[in-house]
Amino acid sequence: MSDVIGAGVSLDDLPLRDDLRGRSPYGAPQLEVPVALNTNENPFPPPPALVESVARATREAAATLHRYPDRDHTALRSALAAYLTRATGVPLATENLWAANGSNEVLQQLLQAFGGPGRLALGFEPSYSMHPILAAGTRTEWLPAPRRDDFSLDAAQAVDVVREKRPDVLFVTTPNNPTGQSIDLDELRAIAEAATGLVVVDEAYVEFSSGPSAVELLEPLGHKLVVSRTMSKAFAFAGGRLGYLAAAPAVIEALMLVRLPYHLSALTQAAALAALEHADDTLALVATLSRERDRIAAALAELGAQVVPSTANFLLYGGFPARHADAHAAWQAYLDAGVLVRDVGIPGMLRVTVGTPEENDRFLEVSAQVLAG
Amino acid sequence: MSDVIGAGVSLDDLPLRDDLRGRSPYGAPQLEVPVALNTNENPFPPPPALVESVARATREAAATLHRYPDRDHTALRSALAAYLTRATGVPLATENLWAANGSNEVLQQLLQAFGGPGRLALGFEPSYSMHPILAAGTRTEWLPAPRRDDFSLDAAQAVDVVREKRPDVLFVTTPNNPTGQSIDLDELRAIAEAATGLVVVDEAYVEFSSGPSAVELLEPLGHKLVVSRTMSKAFAFAGGRLGYLAAAPAVIEALMLVRLPYHLSALTQAAALAALEHADDTLALVATLSRERDRIAAALAELGAQVVPSTANFLLYGGFPARHADAHAAWQAYLDAGVLVRDVGIPGMLRVTVGTPEENDRFLEVSAQVLAG
Repeated sequence: MSDVIGAGVSLDDLPLRDDLRGRSPYGAPQLEVPVALNTNENPFPPPPALVESVARATREAAATLHRYPDRDHTALRSALAAYLTRATGVPLATENLWAANGSNEVLQQLLQAFGGPGRLALGFEPSYSMHPILAAGTRTEWLPAPRRDDFSLDAAQAVDVVREKRPDVLFVTTPNNPTGQSIDLDELRAIAEAATGLVVVDEAYVEFSSGPSAVELLEPLGHKLVVSRTMSKAFAFAGGRLGYLAAAPAVIEALMLVRLPYHLSALTQAAALAALEHADDTLALVATLSRERDRIAAALAELGAQVVPSTANFLLYGGFPARHADAHAAWQAYLDAGVLVRDVGIPGMLRVTVGTPEENDRFLEVSAQVLAG
Repeated sequence: MSDVIGAGVSLDDLPLRDDLRGRSPYGAPQLEVPVALNTNENPFPPPPALVESVARATREAAATLHRYPDRDHTALRSALAAYLTRATGVPLATENLWAANGSNEVLQQLLQAFGGPGRLALGFEPSYSMHPILAAGTRTEWLPAPRRDDFSLDAAQAVDVVREKRPDVLFVTTPNNPTGQSIDLDELRAIAEAATGLVVVDEAYVEFSSGPSAVELLEPLGHKLVVSRTMSKAFAFAGGRLGYLAAAPAVIEALMLVRLPYHLSALTQAAALAALEHADDTLALVATLSRERDRIAAALAELGAQVVPSTANFLLYGGFPARHADAHAAWQAYLDAGVLVRDVGIPGMLRVTVGTPEENDRFLEVSAQVLAG
């Protein structure tokens, strides 16, 4: 790289913000492996009919790419409202929905509008590791609160900490990533009612659980509740980058003050609309994945692993033998066998995404070796 | 909207940040009119061969949408490096390039890494109105510095203000939006050399000018210079949302610390790559637009307008008669005649985007009426 222009300049030579110095970029390694079970993707490619619809929609959008897209992505928001209404039974309108390039951008916009310098965001860790990163990126103070030792959320304790700390933005992830548990709706409601700020329920994995959605609480708690979702997981649309949320219309008005103009491309809007038309087909595969999750959980337990009960498309598990007491050693042993899982930084534990039945078989084969004493 | 869930909640009921209260969302009105000349779009639809390539590329990408995209969009950065190398003669590498969802996101990332609370950004106004908005969104203090009365940039005065204020991020827009003038490269160099922070040269409209690009200064000034560009204008790709920049590799390393993971969708990466393959065709239309710009400028001057000399695909002009002394009245008169131009908030002046020859004829017809005493 020596003949690259500017290659002699190092990060230390640049006027980078002090709070970014020494940091590493977020992100799981993007490695080429036979069995990739590390980023909670849906292992099933989009059905051919969906690919066809997306291709047709993007071809049509391509013909007018010289024009800016609909800044308020109204057609897409209507389709998302219709989907969520069908999925939850709660009648949502276009004005209740908002979308961005992945739920990360949705959450970043929420923090730009309701967090920021001098404000506090709180979450129950371990949870989605982007929440504190997004807080830092928007200069929102981040306060981690604990879960029980078994990673479930103690609602009474949560109510206490929310009452005491009064966060401006409260994150509750359910099903929780990377642990997999959901919280009951009445417990969630108690926590939300204790909050004085905005309550963001991150339901990225909710389609894999059999429980009700926090969308049901929008009517009683509408003024403070936001339910964020994604098409990355159940919809097999990770590459399309479409996150969305449901909330009171005023929350969406607030986001319009901070969103970048034309943040959602015409191609993204067209492709997501097309993918939503095939929701029934895509979500049919979710049932398969949930069954596979339960099969892996049982098999891992039989191999002697400690498995956290999961309502998502991944499992957190531990109980590695002494030679793999450091979870990273176990992670490496999987990788050496061609299976990429995720070291989420919880001592002695790894997270595995539910793959295809064949991928899961291979994962269990390797697990038998890695977990063997 | 009374039966919409949460419709009873107003923005005032929400814990919105104080500095956002009372604000209005950014953005030109998206109105349906016969002749839309208000957002500096390229009026020519993408050539059929480009549409075909984009359609093929997005169809291919659609088949693997269940997987996350390449987080570092390496193939796209290589193609952008090759294009910029051809366009400027400066040999750029993949490591010198970075892209995001529109140049707004590129600029936001720069401010997240190099601006933020306690830091200062400076620009010469009137200029691109998103610069101060992006500064506010990242809590970067914004200091506007003046241009000459004729909107050209006084380089000697600019050097003085940069030496005195020492901004952490300095914006220089060339060609400048909404005024149209470019700055000479030696003057730009003098201003950049006076800067102690990062210098962001916003070249969104550079393809419409005949002058050299600031990319030529990357080698001598590599450690502090960033050249930002977009595919929205010359490339007729506004709907695709692709902004990019060229800089020293360390600047890109810094952006990797603040970018949202997987910020660029697989469809965006594929479509932009396909569009770049047709750069020669697309850019051939730029010459037509530059000729049309010069034709409109001459015709407006003949109608008695004061026209600011432009090297971009738009013109700022004034000299309206007394009954339209308020530029907004003139704007409304155009709109009543089916022509949408832009009121950019400069007293007595409007901005018109160069359209197709037919659109420009219509604009000039209406201008004859609006400008008539």
